[in-house]
Amino acid sequence: MQRVRIGIVGLGNMGTGHAKYLIEGQVSGGVLAAVCDVRPERLDQAKAEWGDGVKRFDSPEAMFRSGEVDGVIICTPHYEHPKQAIEAFAHDLHVLVEKPAGVYTKQVREMNEAAAGSGKIYGIMYNQRTNPLYRKLKELIASGELGEIRRTNWIITNWYRSQSYYNSGGWRATWAGEGGGVLINQDPHQLDLWQWTTGLMPKRIRAFCQFGKHRDIEVENDVTAYVEYENGASGVFVTSTHEAPGTNRFEISGDRGKIVIENDQMTFWRLREPESEFNKRNTESFAQPEVWKFEIPITPGGAEHLHITRNWTQAILKGTPLIAPGEEGIKGLTISNAMLLSTWTDGWVDLPIDEELFCAKLQEQIERSKAANAANAQPSAR
Amino acid sequence: MQRVRIGIVGLGNMGTGHAKYLIEGQVSGGVLAAVCDVRPERLDQAKAEWGDGVKRFDSPEAMFRSGEVDGVIICTPHYEHPKQAIEAFAHDLHVLVEKPAGVYTKQVREMNEAAAGSGKIYGIMYNQRTNPLYRKLKELIASGELGEIRRTNWIITNWYRSQSYYNSGGWRATWAGEGGGVLINQDPHQLDLWQWTTGLMPKRIRAFCQFGKHRDIEVENDVTAYVEYENGASGVFVTSTHEAPGTNRFEISGDRGKIVIENDQMTFWRLREPESEFNKRNTESFAQPEVWKFEIPITPGGAEHLHITRNWTQAILKGTPLIAPGEEGIKGLTISNAMLLSTWTDGWVDLPIDEELFCAKLQEQIERSKAANAANAQPSAR
Repeated sequence: MQRVRIGIVGLGNMGTGHAKYLIEGQVSGGVLAAVCDVRPERLDQAKAEWGDGVKRFDSPEAMFRSGEVDGVIICTPHYEHPKQAIEAFAHDLHVLVEKPAGVYTKQVREMNEAAAGSGKIYGIMYNQRTNPLYRKLKELIASGELGEIRRTNWIITNWYRSQSYYNSGGWRATWAGEGGGVLINQDPHQLDLWQWTTGLMPKRIRAFCQFGKHRDIEVENDVTAYVEYENGASGVFVTSTHEAPGTNRFEISGDRGKIVIENDQMTFWRLREPESEFNKRNTESFAQPEVWKFEIPITPGGAEHLHITRNWTQAILKGTPLIAPGEEGIKGLTISNAMLLSTWTDGWVDLPIDEELFCAKLQEQIERSKAANAANAQPSAR
Repeated sequence: MQRVRIGIVGLGNMGTGHAKYLIEGQVSGGVLAAVCDVRPERLDQAKAEWGDGVKRFDSPEAMFRSGEVDGVIICTPHYEHPKQAIEAFAHDLHVLVEKPAGVYTKQVREMNEAAAGSGKIYGIMYNQRTNPLYRKLKELIASGELGEIRRTNWIITNWYRSQSYYNSGGWRATWAGEGGGVLINQDPHQLDLWQWTTGLMPKRIRAFCQFGKHRDIEVENDVTAYVEYENGASGVFVTSTHEAPGTNRFEISGDRGKIVIENDQMTFWRLREPESEFNKRNTESFAQPEVWKFEIPITPGGAEHLHITRNWTQAILKGTPLIAPGEEGIKGLTISNAMLLSTWTDGWVDLPIDEELFCAKLQEQIERSKAANAANAQPSAR
């Protein structure tokens, strides 16, 4: 294969964005071959903008079986991702799925299994994994610069969303339409980066979601979660959509000091010797380890979606390792599901979560959601 | 009364510190009249330094009934505070008690009742209430500059204490000797300031204490607590003694913006109009309220213990209102007790707490503590 014929599933904001850089030729080896959407007006717009060189289909199935594409980028509403990805794999297509991987881990596990059995290239649009800040953080931690992690703390409350935003789509911020709020829509990147940069998945989670906080919506838009890791470290994740201005501050402390990412800067307070060693040899009551403060230089740029699409295309063409393998989408989603489940059960949630229980609890919300939103709950592409 | 004859109960670090500035004449209207300590060597040292002008007693009771003092500063180990304060009130003495007010709220409630019945001036050594940073914060919040509070978040992990510190006194960091760890020894100021500056006491608390984290001690030295307030706001308090370098960052967000205190600076991101009003009138999907960032000017100085002693002395002489009324010591202690209780019961704790249950649980720890520390659990003055 010399070039990958790419099809886009769903011409919402994200799908249109991906189409644009493909049309502009920004992805070497990749070409926008087809698009599909259930809304005729979106296809009309595609024809007007890109002409007949880009094939148009009124359903994903039609595009999958057309023979016109080698791989697809799935940009439909969250609930649809796994089903469509599974169909695409069945049609022997490579898949790049938008985040979140899905709404509940059970469906994402099925998607992962289909991917594993297909032998196709399976990526997820975790473009923040190409952000030099988080790449550097991951590299520092993986190389041992921070020592064993003792605490993580992410305050990510700068997802300001007004009521007007929530009113802009009937499917938005509903259990039936989105399957969640800030955790499923705004936070997937952070939930992924939290585990990806540190290399740590929580062992258990106790979370406190508040639903419709200062907003007329039914889903969670204010969350505080406490997590414990296998190595004894603990962590906190705080997020909301109603605070202005919010905060985006990620602090990780370890045996060799502390790293804080805030305002697109990374500061590293590095201990000259590990705390554990200092503590072992120190004989004074109030002594502290010697600390050196660094601003870590960060390469500019990155974090654009097209980096992930380029990487996925190169993986198809040349076997380049994926930056964001699709299988890993379940990790952040597991954390997200666990936070909701902990709130619904008012107790601890051990990981891996009880997927059936989560589905049952989500279904309860959906039933109420449907009742409350019978008129306007119309899932559509983002 | 023209001057207050002050007696100091317990010549540990704190008691000696208070004695020094009194001897230096730094408290107008106050004079160091007497000291007491159960340790003869401390009294010998007092005689060597201050001569016979400062009376010496080998027990609090002897000093209380001597007629040589009008008021006392109680600087003994935490457990002793309430009992000694109650005795002092019974001897018609004014009382300034060191923090924490006590170890468990039941004993502090009894102290408060004794104080109320005595008609004497009753203060607590919350010297951080004289810190201009926190005074300013309290004033800004009370005057409505921040609007209704939506979230509080205090990360106070810069209480670094090495194993050597913990080994320096057998009573340290034991249930029998101190009755707790970082919450009872290091955090009382922050636990007070958290509620005093915001004017909010939690309605309920879910906390996660870790005991002997990276240290060979039996008490908590790593705590994460989630709280909910009556007005629907939530909060987080994270503290530890094993991280280096730690963080001291207090963030409060409200309807009119956000205040962060860190590195002895206060930054106020102030919304031009309240978020609730912006949200009501806004019709755009991704608009945000206009925000102006200010560095709030802070008067230098403050936070010294002698400010509280001066204020208490003036309250005795002239009826000056107390900055830190003794009755308020129970507030921070209630939060602290609730955090331990939530951990021990692995569940929510509603405020006010079940004091009997807390005492029973604490007693369980003490029994184990005594068994484990039979040889070296010797409470003594700080």
